[in-house]
Amino acid sequence: MNAPIAPKILTRPTPPALIDALTARFGAQLSTAQAVREQHGRDESPFDVPPPSAVVFCESTQDVADAVKLAAAHDVPVIAFGAGSSLEGQLLAVQGGISLDLTRMNRILDVAAADMLVTVQAGVTRLQLNDELRHTGLFFPIDPGADATLGGMAATRASGTNAVRYGTMRENVLALTVVLADGRVVRTGTQARKSSAGYDLTRLMVGSEGTLGIITEVTLRLYPQPEAVAAAVCSFPDVAHAVDCTIALIQAGIPIARVELMDPGAVRAVNAHDHLGLPEQPLLLMEFHGSPAGVREQAETVQALAADYAGSDFAWADTPEERTKLWKARHHAYLSALQMKPGCRCVTTDTCVPISRLAESINDTITEADAAGLPYFVVGHVGDGNYHIGYLIDPAKPEERELAERLNAQLVRRALKLGGTCSGEHGIGLHKQGFLREEAGDDALDVMRAIKQALDPRGILNPGKIFA
Amino acid sequence: MNAPIAPKILTRPTPPALIDALTARFGAQLSTAQAVREQHGRDESPFDVPPPSAVVFCESTQDVADAVKLAAAHDVPVIAFGAGSSLEGQLLAVQGGISLDLTRMNRILDVAAADMLVTVQAGVTRLQLNDELRHTGLFFPIDPGADATLGGMAATRASGTNAVRYGTMRENVLALTVVLADGRVVRTGTQARKSSAGYDLTRLMVGSEGTLGIITEVTLRLYPQPEAVAAAVCSFPDVAHAVDCTIALIQAGIPIARVELMDPGAVRAVNAHDHLGLPEQPLLLMEFHGSPAGVREQAETVQALAADYAGSDFAWADTPEERTKLWKARHHAYLSALQMKPGCRCVTTDTCVPISRLAESINDTITEADAAGLPYFVVGHVGDGNYHIGYLIDPAKPEERELAERLNAQLVRRALKLGGTCSGEHGIGLHKQGFLREEAGDDALDVMRAIKQALDPRGILNPGKIFA
Repeated sequence: MNAPIAPKILTRPTPPALIDALTARFGAQLSTAQAVREQHGRDESPFDVPPPSAVVFCESTQDVADAVKLAAAHDVPVIAFGAGSSLEGQLLAVQGGISLDLTRMNRILDVAAADMLVTVQAGVTRLQLNDELRHTGLFFPIDPGADATLGGMAATRASGTNAVRYGTMRENVLALTVVLADGRVVRTGTQARKSSAGYDLTRLMVGSEGTLGIITEVTLRLYPQPEAVAAAVCSFPDVAHAVDCTIALIQAGIPIARVELMDPGAVRAVNAHDHLGLPEQPLLLMEFHGSPAGVREQAETVQALAADYAGSDFAWADTPEERTKLWKARHHAYLSALQMKPGCRCVTTDTCVPISRLAESINDTITEADAAGLPYFVVGHVGDGNYHIGYLIDPAKPEERELAERLNAQLVRRALKLGGTCSGEHGIGLHKQGFLREEAGDDALDVMRAIKQALDPRGILNPGKIFA
Repeated sequence: MNAPIAPKILTRPTPPALIDALTARFGAQLSTAQAVREQHGRDESPFDVPPPSAVVFCESTQDVADAVKLAAAHDVPVIAFGAGSSLEGQLLAVQGGISLDLTRMNRILDVAAADMLVTVQAGVTRLQLNDELRHTGLFFPIDPGADATLGGMAATRASGTNAVRYGTMRENVLALTVVLADGRVVRTGTQARKSSAGYDLTRLMVGSEGTLGIITEVTLRLYPQPEAVAAAVCSFPDVAHAVDCTIALIQAGIPIARVELMDPGAVRAVNAHDHLGLPEQPLLLMEFHGSPAGVREQAETVQALAADYAGSDFAWADTPEERTKLWKARHHAYLSALQMKPGCRCVTTDTCVPISRLAESINDTITEADAAGLPYFVVGHVGDGNYHIGYLIDPAKPEERELAERLNAQLVRRALKLGGTCSGEHGIGLHKQGFLREEAGDDALDVMRAIKQALDPRGILNPGKIFA
């Protein structure tokens, strides 16, 4: 089964009585304007789906609870909306319903610096959070590239460039406030670092893509800002050498903070977009965190290792400004690549494999992409075994989308055979449902469905996502 | 609501037809001998409950699946049994049923050294695993003290001395093979380090205490054996200073591998039992992992910090043998303490609080224990904010148990007020059900119940645990 090229639309009508009830409760916080609905009816996925029938701009957990209660009373779906940056169609109203925009819930509720914890409303973005944390000496490391909301990142189980050292949202969300399908509000954990008290509702909600509850508050682990930070660029003669070097450094147990692969296509794109002048060869962007001596020790070890794999001498980004420029460019890779082929859209893949199988996974993927002839770029959180190849397609040519999806299917199946997953960090949404079934199997999917049915018997929480 | 002193027994009969069917399927793998049943009818909790009606010695996932299917057909409970070291009554057959002994499932199935992963059968113990890993340069850090089985550790969401650096079973179980309530077998994850593919069934099963499925295989993350290891003992004038020093070192972000508190009662007990000659003062046992330079740097920083809190000069355990002796003694603390009062039993507590509140939590607990007059000892994984006070009670004197439970209730309520949890690592079992309700609230408990009902509608998987 390949990924669907057009998602199944099964719109449940929004009765006028619900709009009336929402208007009575929310007044100007409710919008049914076409432009607003359309803005909330798309994400970074390549799908076109009719927009939600209304948008509620929620300002509190109570707002979310009330909106959910009203929608539930009319059997109408609700979809939480943050930055709109999800990639797999998570936000699309395939069964109709209303969008709950949480971006006004952007308050940092409690910085518990002495416990290295923070509690935020779901609409706080990661850049906003780190801005506000700057004076505390702490930071929140998870960085999916986009300036996503922390609620959305939790719902998608996001990760990104720092995950190799600091883990993903799975490891860094300590507790959540969640609105259930019937509007009740639960807290899923405490502020203790660890707990064996009952089922792990926090981890169940993290990655559930809004299908089991709507996350309204997030308690996150923070880390001391490293005393020393060093970033370096190292070029390799080919992707295979860069990947082999990564495998070696991970196997050596070096606590590298970031190790990102860019193929020549990605380098060309960011050079064009961000005027970087990086050598247009496969390269690793790396960052080291620690004490000054620790960073020096790590960097020397990795430089020596890189030399074994024909890596260049490190080019250092020494100042915070240079580092910011470098990482911004990396984060722009997706947008930069889109600009290399005006009018194109991007079909992105997201497999993650055991680190020892990464080389064969990437090499075969590149061979297939070269043979197919679609323009593409590769970026990768390679320290985790996770990489993305983006195929640039002309949306007016269905055969290009079909070809890209065929390549995606091939690479996902290879990843599954290698012991990997179809999604390292983007989630399932609409796009990867067939792959999830292949990966997890029917029985595990039945377990997921049973949980969904138990917590959302009327199917109003982002229905049609993860599984149909 | 205080913890129940005697658990509610609600035995569901085991029909002879089930015993016949089990005999036909399992032959000599089935035992109904009184001694075998009694051995499988107790754990390290202070409860007395009638034993299970039979024990099946399972040798494969298929054995477990078949036993569960047969039990399900007769509506008879099943309880998985590993090392029998759980502390909160998790293994007790409060609703009757049969025990599935998994200790024969003790094979290491796959050491994926290049991916720093291992897959084991549920009955492999942590010491066995580390023994077999020795030649690989890797190790599995989670260490709850007892030589528990890895299936049991996963089911309890165990942690212990190394969790401050390496995390708990929550962070270190990558995937599971689980037998469901109807005997179907699911795999909950892949070998990829991270994944966003669907609901996190792994984390849902970890800590579910055998109530949602029976774990038969566990895939675990491994770590490189540190290049250098140093262990040190540091004495303090009182517990408050030792705890304040711990808080400071955690807040400084020092990646200490272990930092364990022992109060004078615990030190006296291990001195008597293991002939250690430690100064009978509050002390911290610490361990540092890293490169030789990194370990030196960490140790110097912590020694300087300890001096600020009136800590003694570090006494070093330099050789592996000395370190093993020290940690063995620490792990014997519970048994050593029991021997200080012959015939006694121990009521153990397990709260975990945010690190900044640890001092007030422990200090008030000690004040109350001193006032109550029961002998006690304190050990703590203080880097995580988790500690145990053990009250030594005379089982013949119900008033001592009542007093200990009263003290436990007081300290749990204090922990909850401080943002903590009633259980850092021992789980809920029978003993902490009232506390779980206070901690999670009725609505979150309803969510847990709904999940239980969805996955085990006939209530045959370790019924009566976590919630009634």
